[in-house]
Amino acid sequence: MGKKDKQFVEKVTAMEEDFAQWYTDVVKQADLVDYASVRGSMIIRPYGYAIWENIRDVLDKKIKDTGHQNMYFPLFIPESLLQKEKDHIEGFAPEVAWVTHGGSEELQERLVVRPTSEVLFAEHYSKIIHSYRDLPKLYNQWSNVVRWEKTTRPFLRSLEFLWQEGHTCHATEQDAAEETRKMLDVYATVCEDFLAIPVIKGRKTEKEKFAGANYTLTIESLMHDGKALQTGTSHHLGTGFAEAFDITYSDENGNQQYVHQTSWGITTRLIGALIMVHGDNRGLVVPPRVAPTQVMIVPIAQHKEGVLERAYELKGQVAEFARVDIDASDKMPGWKFNEYEMKGIPLRLEVGPKDIEKNQVVLVRRDTGEKSFVAMDELSTIIPALLEDIQQTLYDRALAHREEKTTNVTTFAEFKQALEQNPGFVEAMWCEDKACEENIKEETGATSRCIPFEQENRAGHCVCCGKEATQLVYWAKAY
Amino acid sequence: MGKKDKQFVEKVTAMEEDFAQWYTDVVKQADLVDYASVRGSMIIRPYGYAIWENIRDVLDKKIKDTGHQNMYFPLFIPESLLQKEKDHIEGFAPEVAWVTHGGSEELQERLVVRPTSEVLFAEHYSKIIHSYRDLPKLYNQWSNVVRWEKTTRPFLRSLEFLWQEGHTCHATEQDAAEETRKMLDVYATVCEDFLAIPVIKGRKTEKEKFAGANYTLTIESLMHDGKALQTGTSHHLGTGFAEAFDITYSDENGNQQYVHQTSWGITTRLIGALIMVHGDNRGLVVPPRVAPTQVMIVPIAQHKEGVLERAYELKGQVAEFARVDIDASDKMPGWKFNEYEMKGIPLRLEVGPKDIEKNQVVLVRRDTGEKSFVAMDELSTIIPALLEDIQQTLYDRALAHREEKTTNVTTFAEFKQALEQNPGFVEAMWCEDKACEENIKEETGATSRCIPFEQENRAGHCVCCGKEATQLVYWAKAY
Repeated sequence: MGKKDKQFVEKVTAMEEDFAQWYTDVVKQADLVDYASVRGSMIIRPYGYAIWENIRDVLDKKIKDTGHQNMYFPLFIPESLLQKEKDHIEGFAPEVAWVTHGGSEELQERLVVRPTSEVLFAEHYSKIIHSYRDLPKLYNQWSNVVRWEKTTRPFLRSLEFLWQEGHTCHATEQDAAEETRKMLDVYATVCEDFLAIPVIKGRKTEKEKFAGANYTLTIESLMHDGKALQTGTSHHLGTGFAEAFDITYSDENGNQQYVHQTSWGITTRLIGALIMVHGDNRGLVVPPRVAPTQVMIVPIAQHKEGVLERAYELKGQVAEFARVDIDASDKMPGWKFNEYEMKGIPLRLEVGPKDIEKNQVVLVRRDTGEKSFVAMDELSTIIPALLEDIQQTLYDRALAHREEKTTNVTTFAEFKQALEQNPGFVEAMWCEDKACEENIKEETGATSRCIPFEQENRAGHCVCCGKEATQLVYWAKAY
Repeated sequence: MGKKDKQFVEKVTAMEEDFAQWYTDVVKQADLVDYASVRGSMIIRPYGYAIWENIRDVLDKKIKDTGHQNMYFPLFIPESLLQKEKDHIEGFAPEVAWVTHGGSEELQERLVVRPTSEVLFAEHYSKIIHSYRDLPKLYNQWSNVVRWEKTTRPFLRSLEFLWQEGHTCHATEQDAAEETRKMLDVYATVCEDFLAIPVIKGRKTEKEKFAGANYTLTIESLMHDGKALQTGTSHHLGTGFAEAFDITYSDENGNQQYVHQTSWGITTRLIGALIMVHGDNRGLVVPPRVAPTQVMIVPIAQHKEGVLERAYELKGQVAEFARVDIDASDKMPGWKFNEYEMKGIPLRLEVGPKDIEKNQVVLVRRDTGEKSFVAMDELSTIIPALLEDIQQTLYDRALAHREEKTTNVTTFAEFKQALEQNPGFVEAMWCEDKACEENIKEETGATSRCIPFEQENRAGHCVCCGKEATQLVYWAKAY
């Protein structure tokens, strides 16, 4: 922050009062983003970007460990190329940015700023894949993409966002199916083990699937306000793009076959999820594993002899086992407490003259506010244990919240009541008829989030039309 | 490569015959790039991207170690924002891509796809800087940028490229000057110690400086064909953007002051430099420190019992101290030798039945072709030493080449003769008159590359007009 005239961090709006405003306040006051000149675009500030770098590094390692290679495709897609796969262009055309001029000349063909890169990958694959020996091809790209959204919110829905998009080719439908599932599981692991965000894994309905996919797998999470957020998707593309782009290989018998493809992505949206799952009325709460700074040292009465010296020594000590920083600026300790609570730093370490006398420090947890006095020579065991406990506590809390906010219903009346009285996920049977899905959306505002993999094996009746139904679906109002 | 019908890697054009074609052959056949649908755009393939990731990771660490923070700015810049700094817009307007439509609607104001982000940083800085306590601000961004180039070549000049752009604000001109120089030195270290590319550090002339800068520092390298390549630049922006965007701070006495800024960048162009400095007629030569794979194991007679098993054991062993891979495909060893020579992998390790009997392997250096038989239990000392020696040999070779191709001249006749008979750098005195600089370019095709920091302290006469001159300049034809 560092503004001369700003002695204390402003309070954020209470989330119970106005959740949307709370969110906006937190992203701004925790220094995650700033607004830019172009409507709907965001500047990701150093603190927000450091969180993204941590997510990226962890996921990138998992992507490589599962045999994928990174590469980079161009930002621009010629209009004619995007039009080759019909469902795909229909899905994306309304929300793309168009480049029409280069320098002072008008282009003969308009260019799309990539909203996603299936067609570029497909064109490349058609050139480099010839034989079954070339398969699978497992490529991934980290990049920016642009979607011309009408209403935007930082991280959740913005004109431009950062993401990774994996694009793979396989010899068989089964291989592609396994890949689709494998990468969804990778995303689920990153969300649960790293971001402490519990997810429900499942399949999207036909209506909600990706434009151009056979089917879409998804992980869905519940935010603090009871709305759902899609945190990652993995698409089985079948042979649609392969047919449109002529991506074939000769199999072991010399017959030409279409490849079976997948694509999968996660975005800076995960930062939005992190805010809305863990945050509270004092600001952000960052799970230790993703936190750029896990421990913030705040010296008390730092003008007194020996305090700063000792605080810096402690920093060196703690750096051996945690990401630690120190704020030795001349701001008041209370100001610093507020700032780092707003930023959601998991642990605060206070050390002042009295502590030094007693060879101890004060540790304050961001998640519970709990305060403990710890001997200096025990920090190397206590701090890692506390960080692990905070990580687990955040996950458990989020899971308990989701379970509390999930209602199993059998009738449409119950469905509506659940959304009103206990907003969150509604579990209900569905007949697989798109009309019922649309009707539910129209009457309740809830969309189908996913058909979970874990189906309680039961028959039942569609919550909307009452016909026989075999699919349990998670419904919710969603971001 | 993996194409069924391609038993051996095609040869590349000899560089003595046609250097441009040699370059194009190498980038294609070493699987660095593929061409994309949009003119002048490139697909960076996994092998090329892995090299970029290594450069990025090393530089990113240095950027962070020098106190900078990463962040991310939007891709689009409103036309009016770009126009705020006059020299800047004049320099960039002819070569930008314009977005005129979003979805189906025409935009009220055209958007520029960022060619560089000075104005976005400037706008943000004007909002977040208030007091001398907020300074310095040391930000960096890794991103893609677009410049609407007429003639393009992969890595060297393309419509879109990847880079990092640092943008900083300082209280004084002196602080900004130190930063400008510090980051140039960081770039020089990355080029010399990591990419084994010797550089000449210096200042650009007024004519060649960045649009909107007070002055531009540069590092210049010499390619194998005697042409120069600018490998990195660092700009002292003075207060130009600060005045245009009102970026002020109140100093310790409460007076409003403009900040002093810098910006600096390196790009995927470095990969082009690496190719043209180290490559030879068998393809790419990658210095060990940047090589995605440092040692490639090629089993000989791998169908014989125990060979593959032993080769994989060796892989595990070598992985302890080097980046190693194995090619156990059913291609012929000769095919594999060609492929990994084309890809410039520093060391090849061959192991066959006879070697296993003798408990030895064959090591072949890519840079010299030298072959040695090494006892298996000595690999952990021999391989790291060989890799270091290759790194040093490549640097020494490049430096010797540059020195051989640098001619010190005093007359214009000598200048022209040098460029014809020994194309490379020409060292010559210059009177600092732009007319002479333009005249030299017109008559010889050579541009001023830099005014080197290391000036032999001498007086002399301008090589062009004969007037007194105090500046020694490096001239060359350049990419």
